[in-house]
Amino acid sequence: ININRLMDWIENDSARVGGLDRGGICRLALTDEDKTIRDLFIQWMEDIHLKVRVDDFGNMYGRLEGTDPEAAPVVIGSHLDTQPEGGRYDGILGVLSGLEVLYTLRENNITPTRSIELICFTNEEGARFAPPILGAGGLANVFSKDFVYSRTDKDGKSFIDELKRIDYQGKEENRIQHMHSFIELHIEQGPVLEQKGLDIGVVTGIQGMNWLEVTVKGEADHAGPTPMNMRKDPMMASAAMMTEVRSMVVNHDDEATVTVGQFGLQPGSINCVPGEVTFTVDIRHSSDTQRESLVEQAKKIIKTIADQQHVTCEIHPIWETPSSHFSKHLTDQLSEAANQLGYSYQEMISGAGHDAKYINEMAPTAMIFVPSANGKSHCQEEFTDKSFIEKGANVLLNTVQQLTEN
Amino acid sequence: ININRLMDWIENDSARVGGLDRGGICRLALTDEDKTIRDLFIQWMEDIHLKVRVDDFGNMYGRLEGTDPEAAPVVIGSHLDTQPEGGRYDGILGVLSGLEVLYTLRENNITPTRSIELICFTNEEGARFAPPILGAGGLANVFSKDFVYSRTDKDGKSFIDELKRIDYQGKEENRIQHMHSFIELHIEQGPVLEQKGLDIGVVTGIQGMNWLEVTVKGEADHAGPTPMNMRKDPMMASAAMMTEVRSMVVNHDDEATVTVGQFGLQPGSINCVPGEVTFTVDIRHSSDTQRESLVEQAKKIIKTIADQQHVTCEIHPIWETPSSHFSKHLTDQLSEAANQLGYSYQEMISGAGHDAKYINEMAPTAMIFVPSANGKSHCQEEFTDKSFIEKGANVLLNTVQQLTEN
Ligand SMILES: NC(=O)NCCC(=O)O
Ligand SMILES: NC(=O)NCCC(=O)O
Repeated sequence: ININRLMDWIENDSARVGGLDRGGICRLALTDEDKTIRDLFIQWMEDIHLKVRVDDFGNMYGRLEGTDPEAAPVVIGSHLDTQPEGGRYDGILGVLSGLEVLYTLRENNITPTRSIELICFTNEEGARFAPPILGAGGLANVFSKDFVYSRTDKDGKSFIDELKRIDYQGKEENRIQHMHSFIELHIEQGPVLEQKGLDIGVVTGIQGMNWLEVTVKGEADHAGPTPMNMRKDPMMASAAMMTEVRSMVVNHDDEATVTVGQFGLQPGSINCVPGEVTFTVDIRHSSDTQRESLVEQAKKIIKTIADQQHVTCEIHPIWETPSSHFSKHLTDQLSEAANQLGYSYQEMISGAGHDAKYINEMAPTAMIFVPSANGKSHCQEEFTDKSFIEKGANVLLNTVQQLTEN
Repeated sequence: ININRLMDWIENDSARVGGLDRGGICRLALTDEDKTIRDLFIQWMEDIHLKVRVDDFGNMYGRLEGTDPEAAPVVIGSHLDTQPEGGRYDGILGVLSGLEVLYTLRENNITPTRSIELICFTNEEGARFAPPILGAGGLANVFSKDFVYSRTDKDGKSFIDELKRIDYQGKEENRIQHMHSFIELHIEQGPVLEQKGLDIGVVTGIQGMNWLEVTVKGEADHAGPTPMNMRKDPMMASAAMMTEVRSMVVNHDDEATVTVGQFGLQPGSINCVPGEVTFTVDIRHSSDTQRESLVEQAKKIIKTIADQQHVTCEIHPIWETPSSHFSKHLTDQLSEAANQLGYSYQEMISGAGHDAKYINEMAPTAMIFVPSANGKSHCQEEFTDKSFIEKGANVLLNTVQQLTEN
């Protein structure tokens, strides 16, 4: 592959669309910035004469026709949307490396036996429309079309209205039906590869995760003359809930995680005891039974504290997905490719959800990880060195060539 | 006094300007709603031929000229601004009862010896522009004109721009210079009078209070693949800070209070460990030394937890005011009036700040409290029974008549 061309797309073209002050990107799904990068991406696919189409979820496809057009295609890809303060690589790497693989084949006049399809999925991050992985989940029938279309952002705008607004609602018949296999290249987003000094992660599965929304209601009151023992203070109750859930999770094992990423209170005045608080809880563990038990314990802690502090609480599930297990055949193939190319690698589990999570329900699937500097992502500091990107893209190219001929 | 006329102003005219769904009012200082109630209030003052003027802080005055116009006037009043979800009585009661007192004198053709001035002060609540009591504090030279004018709301709009926008920037020469005395009638906003079955609180002073803004910075990261022990999570650190500060305050004594009324985090995505959190802390105690010690202990707790959880914190003071002690001469006079009228009463300290706090720096000052149902205020449920309002207004009328003749 041509690493300079690939880096130019990543560091220059893509990083400019929604670029932030410290090098990151804000390109939420179905915004104007998303439209801009989609238009560019389609142009790039057309430059190498891929057959381009868009499905009813806004998933974009570019097809390089094989010599056996009836054979199920090998599929690669990821997403171009980002977090509100996201990095340059999360998702983008998989889409643009896929494009680079196809460029390389075109330049070398290689026509594979099986066709190759490159897909950019809609709203993987879940940062604008929850839950995440909506485009891939819709395609894989994990989510119904009505469910996907009716998701709303924090301003109440719906997925379908925004999809139409940016003019990316394609036809249902454009959805891909059959895949031979799906391979997604992605940054690790965690510290393991860097800490072990490895080039490549061969991803054998994705851990399960739960998203909860907790609403705590008390009674708004004056910050001064209201004695502490007469208060029904949802802010102080929520702080105690978070503190106890965190210590339960930290004491469980080194693997369990809990995150409160969104938080709001009403009425929001310095000298008012708040009347209502809402916050989200993200809980993950590679073992489904342990994750389920962590979620149950968290709910119990939250309810107990609500009772103790004379507030009420409602716990609403936003997203739940069990762990995914990828194709052994494909992960073996990825290990073989890394081995052949002389790269160091190990098998690992992903801590983050990916489009591959739901595509795994449709077809044999696996993922390639490259190291994240300091393990960081979902922040502007997200970084992966060019040398690892080159290695990851080479593993992708090598594997795709193997798969198209078998 | 005419209780029905007074209740009509409170329950109908005023409650409609910024009226909310559950009977409360949102009438933040220097908004369009504030302008509407100001225009109405000026009309009501002109209806009884008061001499109306506005000073450079937007404080509004109505003067009933006495037979001895050279004698320092007796001053009454309070504020018409509210919390974002405030009640119908907080502040409003003192302004409209003052108006009713003057109406009653006019109707009975009584011209007092000393003049009487009724004042409505600007931005008492501090809910839009912090700190609170800005108009009265400016008048009393507690705050400089530059300081008051440069306060901004959460959208960055300044006090002076908003004051000009609603056309209520009067002249500096309109500020009141000399007062014989200042009396403010207000709802208690706490539970004491109701619990003791009393009609009237004779307020001998106001407790001190501190407002702090705490900014906690960590590192934004992914909610999934980032192990708990690698995180620098300002949300979890803030939750621990609040929990520990609360328990320190609750264990101190029954009087100390702490409130977190505003809270925000960045970037605010469900699957992001936040990078930055900001929250406010309101700490109060009737003893200044104990309050200062509570604030020092809170700062120490916040800094210790920041160190433990590998985040940084900045603690910025927004407001600090020591306890105020009102005129014994005036509180004795209030007790005598309540006694003469056959109302039950007791002396008490105010847990909330009031315009009287800063006017006390200019002239002998005291306050009259009437009971708050369930001690509640700064919420839509705030309520004071008509019978108590009538008693409070009668104490005000009686006292003003005593003061104007002495
Ligand atoms: N890769 C990624 O950040 N996906 C978002 C879904 C998740 O929260 O894991
Ligand atoms: N009366 C009143 O609510 N004043 C606001 C200032 C304070 O927070 O005490």
